[in-house]
Amino acid sequence: MEVKSYQDLNVTPRILLGPGPSMVSPRVLNAMSSPTIGHLDPEFLTLMKEVQDLLRFVFQTENELTVPISGTGSAGMEAALSNFIEPGDNVLVAVLGYFGERLYEMAGRYTDNVDRIERPWGEVFDPDEIKTALGQKKYKVLALVHAETSTGVLQKGIAEIAEAAHQQGTLLVMDTVTSLGGMPVEIDNWDVDVAFSATQKSMSGPPGLAPLTVSPRAREVLRNRTTPVGNWYFDLSLLEKYWGDERTYHHTAPINMNYGLRESLRLVAEEGLEERFARHRANAEMLWAGLEDLDLSLMVPEEYRLTTLTTPIVPPGVDALEVRQQLLNNYNLEIAGGFGPLVGKIWRIGLMGYSSRRENVLLLLAALREIFANR
Amino acid sequence: MEVKSYQDLNVTPRILLGPGPSMVSPRVLNAMSSPTIGHLDPEFLTLMKEVQDLLRFVFQTENELTVPISGTGSAGMEAALSNFIEPGDNVLVAVLGYFGERLYEMAGRYTDNVDRIERPWGEVFDPDEIKTALGQKKYKVLALVHAETSTGVLQKGIAEIAEAAHQQGTLLVMDTVTSLGGMPVEIDNWDVDVAFSATQKSMSGPPGLAPLTVSPRAREVLRNRTTPVGNWYFDLSLLEKYWGDERTYHHTAPINMNYGLRESLRLVAEEGLEERFARHRANAEMLWAGLEDLDLSLMVPEEYRLTTLTTPIVPPGVDALEVRQQLLNNYNLEIAGGFGPLVGKIWRIGLMGYSSRRENVLLLLAALREIFANR
Repeated sequence: MEVKSYQDLNVTPRILLGPGPSMVSPRVLNAMSSPTIGHLDPEFLTLMKEVQDLLRFVFQTENELTVPISGTGSAGMEAALSNFIEPGDNVLVAVLGYFGERLYEMAGRYTDNVDRIERPWGEVFDPDEIKTALGQKKYKVLALVHAETSTGVLQKGIAEIAEAAHQQGTLLVMDTVTSLGGMPVEIDNWDVDVAFSATQKSMSGPPGLAPLTVSPRAREVLRNRTTPVGNWYFDLSLLEKYWGDERTYHHTAPINMNYGLRESLRLVAEEGLEERFARHRANAEMLWAGLEDLDLSLMVPEEYRLTTLTTPIVPPGVDALEVRQQLLNNYNLEIAGGFGPLVGKIWRIGLMGYSSRRENVLLLLAALREIFANR
Repeated sequence: MEVKSYQDLNVTPRILLGPGPSMVSPRVLNAMSSPTIGHLDPEFLTLMKEVQDLLRFVFQTENELTVPISGTGSAGMEAALSNFIEPGDNVLVAVLGYFGERLYEMAGRYTDNVDRIERPWGEVFDPDEIKTALGQKKYKVLALVHAETSTGVLQKGIAEIAEAAHQQGTLLVMDTVTSLGGMPVEIDNWDVDVAFSATQKSMSGPPGLAPLTVSPRAREVLRNRTTPVGNWYFDLSLLEKYWGDERTYHHTAPINMNYGLRESLRLVAEEGLEERFARHRANAEMLWAGLEDLDLSLMVPEEYRLTTLTTPIVPPGVDALEVRQQLLNNYNLEIAGGFGPLVGKIWRIGLMGYSSRRENVLLLLAALREIFANR
């Protein structure tokens, strides 16, 4: 069997201002290229503890079971759902965009009884709507998205929703993929039971790991399962022994990706959470003002707009895809389009982690000005 | 919330001669530190095609559905089982070590009807035993391990076993984690339906991706499912659209890990499969002779011994763990111990990919000679 010979990798450097992956800090890339060691090497076991400690800081939690799942953000979502749902359990999903839809679809792999409430893409829930829905049935799990990557909205009132869920004996599972590291995520203050995220958004790392944190209340639910978890790779009853003091072998952790995650987390800790959130906000505000100067209106009202992801509306007569292609081909700038009901109607501009820089905002605005001037 | 400040990563360089991870080629580490681009960037889409093409070469297959699963080897195993098993299906697992046990346990997450045949750890099956078992019941899937990482044995007669399985309408799922890239794996010649592997063994990459290949026969079984796949992240009916021409968004591929995999695969293609297998054999033979000179006997008869992983028996009165600790602490050499019924009884010495080098064998033998002389 013949194989074509392929040339050396020669990637064009892009300025990544889409919904992720964002640009990766050179410090993270350097850390990732440290020599690989064994997954049971005492040095790696120390690194695992450090990563867990730093993840707890970023999640603002004391949860012992706080680990990076060895897969991308969707793997974190699958771990967050599959461990707490048994066949026959009632699950409620609050859907306000693509990733809420995904929560709904994924939950359905583990039980037939998944209910949903929804809001049109671009809107958010009044916490009272969720509270009312929680009262309709005895739900084991309520799942929702904190920062919806498909629309750019922030679901507020998490602490209030969590309290209502707990009054009904329901666990709150929350997607923080587009908020963690860029906007406040306060797992313990808000009393969220299970939260997951990804490394390639506001954490300045490449995709491949999914931070996950699990409250003692949720661990109790895991311990009281009467059926095995519906998959093996994400089974937290096994993973907690691998990441805990037992170090019972489960799978071989992605060593170099964990080197990178440790460095991503150190960068967050060095900058400080408040300072980091303020940087994301300042650069987002600069972007918002600049887009409005270009006569672009923003889909999401400021009150529940993400600072990590902005969604301007495509003006009438403009081909959304063509603008994106011009940005990529002529400026090496990546932004994304809408999808689902928003295809062709919005752009999605991410300013996350290492990508959230004043110079990137200036360049994007200048490039858009050129493109619009030449139409 | 306070967080400890952690120092710069400063990993001790280890010579990795355990069962994986093996040492990573500097070319792979360099490729991994190329700038991250978007997962829908045309350049990344081209890279995906190249990776698939190179994977087909290494698997020796024309299978269109040949992809890296975005997780470690165990994720590959979960994808290989969960897509082809529906609740109620009969599955047969041939168990001859830890990873056979894992196949058995994992298959049980997807159906209650999993049968097993087994051999004591360290032995292999006569293909006739498997054929006889296949005749006892109508099985949807037969799963077995080609190269068992816990014992160092090679299961032979795969083509014969595959033929018998197909006569019964059974799919053959095979674990090639410790063989792919180091020993012959001929998916099409042997007519294997589903095979999976990992990047951190004979492929000279870090852990984090799981090469998987699926035959047209197995894809037909996937298409004819009457229930959804039991998980979402590994659902090949979605993944085939992401890796196929549709490019339908599923998850964000681990970009930099795929840069690394492409380089790992280029290294295999440059060396040539036959030459690579011969190198693994020559270094293994040198190790075997050297271990026998040290009066260590090998658990596995040469006839079905892996060239990628050698398992010497720990002599009476020797503390297996202490020797490993001396190797690690005084020589920066990592080998592994046995586990399960073989704990304390064998060592596991891997010579895979970039680790399979004459100088590594010489150093290990010299180190063992010193350790044994000083007892």
